[in-house]
Formats: sequence, structure tokens, C-alpha cells
Amino acid sequence: MSLGEFDIIHTYFNKKIKRQDVVLGLGDDCAILEPPAGKEIIVSTDSLVLNRHFLPETSPFDVGYRAVAVSLSDIAAMGGNPAWLMLSLVLPKVDESWLDEFSKGLFFILEKFNVDLIGGNISRGPLSITTQAIGYGISKNLLRRSAAVPGDLIYVTYTLGDAALALALIKKEIQPDLFSAEEIAELTRALWQPTPRIVEGQAIGKLAHAAIDISDGLLADLSHIMANSQVGAMLYLENIPLSASLKKLPNEKKIELALSGGDDYELCFTVSPKQLPQLDVVNEHLNYPFTCIGQITTHPGLRIKDLEGKSISFSQKGYQHFSEVINKVCG
Amino acid sequence: MSLGEFDIIHTYFNKKIKRQDVVLGLGDDCAILEPPAGKEIIVSTDSLVLNRHFLPETSPFDVGYRAVAVSLSDIAAMGGNPAWLMLSLVLPKVDESWLDEFSKGLFFILEKFNVDLIGGNISRGPLSITTQAIGYGISKNLLRRSAAVPGDLIYVTYTLGDAALALALIKKEIQPDLFSAEEIAELTRALWQPTPRIVEGQAIGKLAHAAIDISDGLLADLSHIMANSQVGAMLYLENIPLSASLKKLPNEKKIELALSGGDDYELCFTVSPKQLPQLDVVNEHLNYPFTCIGQITTHPGLRIKDLEGKSISFSQKGYQHFSEVINKVCG
Repeated sequence: MSLGEFDIIHTYFNKKIKRQDVVLGLGDDCAILEPPAGKEIIVSTDSLVLNRHFLPETSPFDVGYRAVAVSLSDIAAMGGNPAWLMLSLVLPKVDESWLDEFSKGLFFILEKFNVDLIGGNISRGPLSITTQAIGYGISKNLLRRSAAVPGDLIYVTYTLGDAALALALIKKEIQPDLFSAEEIAELTRALWQPTPRIVEGQAIGKLAHAAIDISDGLLADLSHIMANSQVGAMLYLENIPLSASLKKLPNEKKIELALSGGDDYELCFTVSPKQLPQLDVVNEHLNYPFTCIGQITTHPGLRIKDLEGKSISFSQKGYQHFSEVINKVCG
Repeated sequence: MSLGEFDIIHTYFNKKIKRQDVVLGLGDDCAILEPPAGKEIIVSTDSLVLNRHFLPETSPFDVGYRAVAVSLSDIAAMGGNPAWLMLSLVLPKVDESWLDEFSKGLFFILEKFNVDLIGGNISRGPLSITTQAIGYGISKNLLRRSAAVPGDLIYVTYTLGDAALALALIKKEIQPDLFSAEEIAELTRALWQPTPRIVEGQAIGKLAHAAIDISDGLLADLSHIMANSQVGAMLYLENIPLSASLKKLPNEKKIELALSGGDDYELCFTVSPKQLPQLDVVNEHLNYPFTCIGQITTHPGLRIKDLEGKSISFSQKGYQHFSEVINKVCG
């Protein structure tokens, strides 16, 4: 490498620490952190691998941004406060312009959420980025996948499917002429610069039961809540919030992207109907209100009421139509 | 992948949590940890990359062990208590026998040091392993690279150079016929299964000033203490502790491996001469006593008294002989 590990860290990553709770940041064997008294530490790790989570043509700024966003999203899904980030970079070579842009994307989102980069590691090898987000919260208010209760309403933040639509456009599976340049820019941002729903996660911490961030697609991630909570769920397709862009697609495609497309990093959470008045208060302060998309059931498995009012059941093998009449509970 | 991410985690990594301070382990968006009151959190991350930090023929058990050891060694170098580990695995394919052995090596060392695996992530891509060790300590007792003071004696744990000797044997740079099968097995263990010096780090926490773990070689790592503390150092070659195996090599080679060979993960620390009585007490309880190898100086740079009693100065460009007479302070 033309620059050594320490030169790279010094040049691109050694920003001034802003948080009072960082006793010691980069440059020693460990960082030293002073967690707030009476709170629990929460921690998560994620990796981005070239050609798996981003493409050779993805801008380094977006790679840096996204590497942080996916980890902060896990903090959001617990309703926690993000505070610190560790970064492990595996780089095939020292590409200074790549590092410059990458670090700008990384610090852009770190600063937005008041998170300090407190340590890390650089190795030579096939390009991948591993981040570890550390935050804190009060254990009883933290949102676990296992805490959903039958009768809970199921909500999501913002809209679903835009990141998957952006990926389909990149892969040329969908023709771009349906969309304006502004719409394509917006979709691309949804894919590469998702907003971790930290504000929303904290707002529902005391109200909601279970939560998860939607990284693998609504159905896959809701199934984790169902499995961990040992409950079933009913979804109403017509309630799934879609962007104006996604609504331009044929029904089947837009539903596929909204239900099974990953990378949105919206939150899916469950809340007792008793909490609806408080949830309405929270909703009034948000740019985009939460959307109720279904209900947790004692009946195991996932059932979906489709756009024509028919109910379908969903299993790992795919959709299976069935005939039960479903009364909607929300929306 | 034949097994999905969740199957792999369930089969190989979902061991019962043993620590009382883990509120929530694997299987949610974040782990929840309850750090001990009145202590600071310490955290470090390291990556092992195939063909960089281990070889295709390295046993998966050793890869798992070493991935943990290098991170725990950073905790040791602060004099901290290790408590929790996060694991990010990038795997080219699901090789169940590899995963089985890898996880055995990983848990072998985790259990030895009472550390719980509390979370992680599995992606597909070129093989690499990133670990994040989290521990705790009392800030004022934690050992920083910046805390060395002129006059401090410089100590190391155990012996230096065996890991580099093992690597030289693997690379066939040194002929194996100098060594018995037992010696080669011992050297190989030093390379792939280094012992993080947790016990020693904690024992010196209240006594020592600065510390670092020797991952890149004594000279490189001591230079970090010198740079961060803005001090110089004097080393006595005849004091550098060498194993019986390393002593079989010609002088020049054994010194090169002991000074510049990495991967030993021994600790190098500095301590005021006033603390020697207390250090002796600590030493009596160790399997292998600490060895004094030199002294911190106000004179900048590193000087070394060689085996013939001549002094040499060391710079990034290599060794340079000079004529100053040096009075030894230790050993």
C-alpha cells in the first residue's frame, strides 16, 4: 500500500471526537466509552461486500453512507440511541479518491445522528466493510422481535419497495422511461442512502411491543417477529404504503417489490390497539405518519388479504389462496 | 447457500449465554448488555483475511481461535476485562465441516476467557472474519499507549519471535530439521493459537503506565507507545526473552524475528521503577515472569544495545550503528 494503515486512518478517519462520553477514541488498542448510568448498551454489526451489497459502480460516498446506515438501522429497530461506531475496512489497494469519498459518506451520516467513529481496523483483501454500531437504551423500553402479542396492530414507517425498485432499474429489469429524472434520483437515494429510522424508533419505544428493520423484505422480516413471538399475522395489501413511483408499476410487480424487496430499512412494529391514542400523538409530529398494515394473530402463519379482497396464505413455498373472509382491523 | 444465514447461526453459533450481564444475545436486531456500574466500556475490532492473516491450509479451528484471540489481545493490552464478542463472517460458500471446526475453535477460546458470543452477521463473499471484542475496566487503570514516562522500564510478557519463526517454517524460509516435532507443534500453536494476555494485563493495570500488544513486531508496536507518549526508548538485545527453539537460530535471524516478527500477541508495557516491588509480587504469581528489556528515554527515537555491547539506533530506514555507551538499567 502506498499509504500505510496509520496514514489512511490519520488522513481520512481521524475526525475530532464530539461526544462527551468518549473517553478515548481512535489510536489505541481499544476505545474507552462511558455509557450513561442506568442504561443498557446495545450493539449490532453488519457487513457490506462488493458485488453482494453494492456494485463496482456504486459511488464510494454511498458505500460509506450505507455501511453506517445499515448498522444504525439496527439501533433504530430496538428504539435505542446510537452513540458510537467501529469500522473494519478490507481494501484491495489504497485508492485515495475512493477513501476520500467513502469517508465523506461515512461521516455525513455519522454527524447527522451525532455518532462518533471511535475505532477500527484496515486490512488488505477483497473489498468489504464491516461496521459495529453501539448505542444504549432502557432495557424495558427496547423493542424485541419476541414481544409481539396477538391483537397487536402491525405498522410500518414511510413506504416500502422503493429500494427494490431502484435495484430493478439498475439491473434493467424495469424500464426507466416510466419515471422522471427526479423520481429516479429519489429511488436511487432510497437504495443507497436509506435513513435509519432512529427518530421513529425512539418515538415508539415506550408504546410498541415488537419491532424489526426491513432489510430482507417485509415478509421475511415480519416472519422473524412471528417466529420469535410465536404468533401469526394478517396483512392487508391495500394498506401497504407505496410511493408515487412504485404505484406506476403493474399490481403484481409493485406488490412483489413492496412485500419481498429488501433494503428499505423502514421499521415494522407491533403495538397494542390500546396505545392508538398515544400513537396518534406521535404520528402528528412525524413527517410521514406510520401506516397500519395488519394485525398479529394467534392463528399461526401469515395470511394476506389481496387487492381484490381475496385472502391468500403465505408460506416458504410461495402464496397459496384460501377462502377465509377477513375483517380488516385498520386503515 | 445450502444452509441460510439463520440455519448457520442456529447450528453453529447459537450457544447458551452464560454471563449474567447479557440481557439479550443472538437473534434480534441488537444484543442488549448490562455493563457493570461505575466502569467504562472498552471496545476493539480486528479482521482476519484469507491469504493475509491465515492460509488456505490453516485449520478452521485455528482460524476461529485466532479471530477471537487477536481481539481479546486488544482488551488485554488495556488491562481490561473481556466480556462479549460480535462476529461478522464473510463466507464464499457454506462448508459445514469448515463451520463446525471454525466454531469449535471460536468457542474454545471464548469459554476459556468467559466471553459470550452475543451477535453477528453472515454474508456471502471472499472469506474474511471480523470480530469485535467488548469489555470493561476502570478508566484510570486502563493502559494507554500515550502514558509512558521517561525513566519507565519496558517489560514484555513471555518470549518474542516464536510466531514469526513458525511462519518462516511454513514459508520454508527456515529448514525444519533444527527442531523436534514437539518444538514445531509448540511454534505452530504460538502462531495460530496465541494466548491473549488477559491475566497479565489485569495484573499490571494498577502498576503500569503504557501498554500495547505486539501484533506487528516489538519495534513497530513499541514505536506506537513512543509516538503517542512523545518519548524515546532504549532496548537491550540480550534481555529480549527468546524460546529455546528461537535460540537455535543464528544471532542475526533470531534477533530479526524477535524484534520485527509480528503475531506474538505478547504485551509490551512500561512501568515506573518505583513500582518494582509491587511488580515482583505480581511476577511471583505468573507462570512466566515479565522480562525487563529496556527503558523509556527523553532522548527521542529508539536505540538498541546489541549482543556485542555496541549500541545501534533504529529508524524506519533500518539499523544504524552509533557509538554512545549505554548503561543498562535492568536485567
